[in-house]
Amino acid sequence: MNFNEAQVIALLAEIFGQNHPNVPVGIGDDGAVISTSPHSVITTDMAVEGTHFNLDWSSGFEIGRKISAANLADIYAMGGKPEYLVVAVTLTGDETLEWISDLARGIAHEAHSCGAVVVGGDLTRGGLKVIAITAVGSVEKPILRSGAQVGDGIYLSALPGWSAAGLSLIEKAEPDDLEAYAIEQFCAPSVDYSLATAMCESGATSMCDVSDSLITQAQQTADASGVCLSFDQNTFSLHPEFVALSELSKKSGLDIWQWIFAGGEDHVFLATGSDLPGLCVGKVVAGKGVNGLEMKKAPDTWRHFN
Amino acid sequence: MNFNEAQVIALLAEIFGQNHPNVPVGIGDDGAVISTSPHSVITTDMAVEGTHFNLDWSSGFEIGRKISAANLADIYAMGGKPEYLVVAVTLTGDETLEWISDLARGIAHEAHSCGAVVVGGDLTRGGLKVIAITAVGSVEKPILRSGAQVGDGIYLSALPGWSAAGLSLIEKAEPDDLEAYAIEQFCAPSVDYSLATAMCESGATSMCDVSDSLITQAQQTADASGVCLSFDQNTFSLHPEFVALSELSKKSGLDIWQWIFAGGEDHVFLATGSDLPGLCVGKVVAGKGVNGLEMKKAPDTWRHFN
Repeated sequence: MNFNEAQVIALLAEIFGQNHPNVPVGIGDDGAVISTSPHSVITTDMAVEGTHFNLDWSSGFEIGRKISAANLADIYAMGGKPEYLVVAVTLTGDETLEWISDLARGIAHEAHSCGAVVVGGDLTRGGLKVIAITAVGSVEKPILRSGAQVGDGIYLSALPGWSAAGLSLIEKAEPDDLEAYAIEQFCAPSVDYSLATAMCESGATSMCDVSDSLITQAQQTADASGVCLSFDQNTFSLHPEFVALSELSKKSGLDIWQWIFAGGEDHVFLATGSDLPGLCVGKVVAGKGVNGLEMKKAPDTWRHFN
Repeated sequence: MNFNEAQVIALLAEIFGQNHPNVPVGIGDDGAVISTSPHSVITTDMAVEGTHFNLDWSSGFEIGRKISAANLADIYAMGGKPEYLVVAVTLTGDETLEWISDLARGIAHEAHSCGAVVVGGDLTRGGLKVIAITAVGSVEKPILRSGAQVGDGIYLSALPGWSAAGLSLIEKAEPDDLEAYAIEQFCAPSVDYSLATAMCESGATSMCDVSDSLITQAQQTADASGVCLSFDQNTFSLHPEFVALSELSKKSGLDIWQWIFAGGEDHVFLATGSDLPGLCVGKVVAGKGVNGLEMKKAPDTWRHFN
């Protein structure tokens, strides 16, 4: 590593920007001072080399985008609007300044797409690359997982499964356009944050983001709300992207439902309510648990406790 | 590991507590909802196994306390009052439930000592144990590093050096009481947070916490304020703990000034102003840089960019 900490900090301050109107004190002191609403949402998400990302698969820019998206989506999933990020990074010392710069630009890109800014962080050394981001946003009326009501429809902001498809195709030598698109979604998903806001504004009774898998998050909503989420598998095929995902599944011989139901990390929003935007994929009924997501095997998860 | 994620989360929810009056939504949703003041301070700090802690040296409880203290001290150093923490942890899978519980109890202990609560987090797997904490606090009048004025006195909330002394003695087979105290301060420093508040209330013009080393943080204050921090080395010996630290230094044959000036992680507060509480160790004068901290070698740092 032929550069020093001061150079890295100067670079990061430039990428993350300074003099934001709601940030009286940004990078460079013991902490940042931020303007905050009476109620804020806070969430944190960590990504570890070898577990969540792999340098052979993803660029620094993609890694930065992906871990930021995980945090930003959590703020939207609470009915909030992301405002500030802090970023703690462990570097091993074998990074180039270009890779660090790419990572920071990926974080800044995803944050700025939501109107959020990076206000501080911590740089440290260790045996593995690790990135931990905390996002803070404003919220007026939080939308919880516990609000689903019997009679509500179940809505998805997008078709889940692209990221999982991408992971299963990632080592393909010469991917075609569709395969390349799926791989891209695994490396850095395109999250439609605006639809989360639209779902809130349309009166969503519950909301969460599908980060682990649809089956996991649907179960959490069902448990928190004391209801049953009854999915109609046929409705998924009405999504305009279903044909393409189906084509990919046929070509690769892999199960499309495994991708859609068990794949996470697309950060699709799962909401309940009446006449919400997005694809209606089922109904909230009396009872408990989840119906209609027929899985060959449950996904193994070890993640959130927030 | 003979336990599952649900057990860990239930345990953590119990240790961190729920139903805090200013936390409408705590652990268990996509994010936590917290009551926030018009201005908040935010800071993040990461600790990595092998770099910042070592299981042969420190208990989970001590590790939890130490990394929390680093974050809490940063909030106080801005003139803020810590309120909320989120904690992201990477576990390797070889931890016992008891160790995880100890770590969480250490975090909760240190947070509660400041009136702060843990409101969320992320649990993940990786090749190394990593802990990243983000702290948020309220602030009315931030105290920056840039406020030191020519004519101010320089004050320390405590005598730095115990943590550095502890590190140099940590592998001692049968430490005596004084050695054991120093080792304890390395494993989990006793930070006098109340003195930071007292310094603010007495009109501190600048403040920071000594996390890397006195020489590093004094230089940062001098640079940010455009002044010179002129220390009087003799005044350090007036601190009531100097005799004990000096005794330790003589016994071990190690340089006490190396401990005091180059040692960090005690989270002593360094402030400037008139008639502040704490030990007065010098004056702010016209010029730049730092005088009077005669060091044999500068500490190597690779840390904060917040």
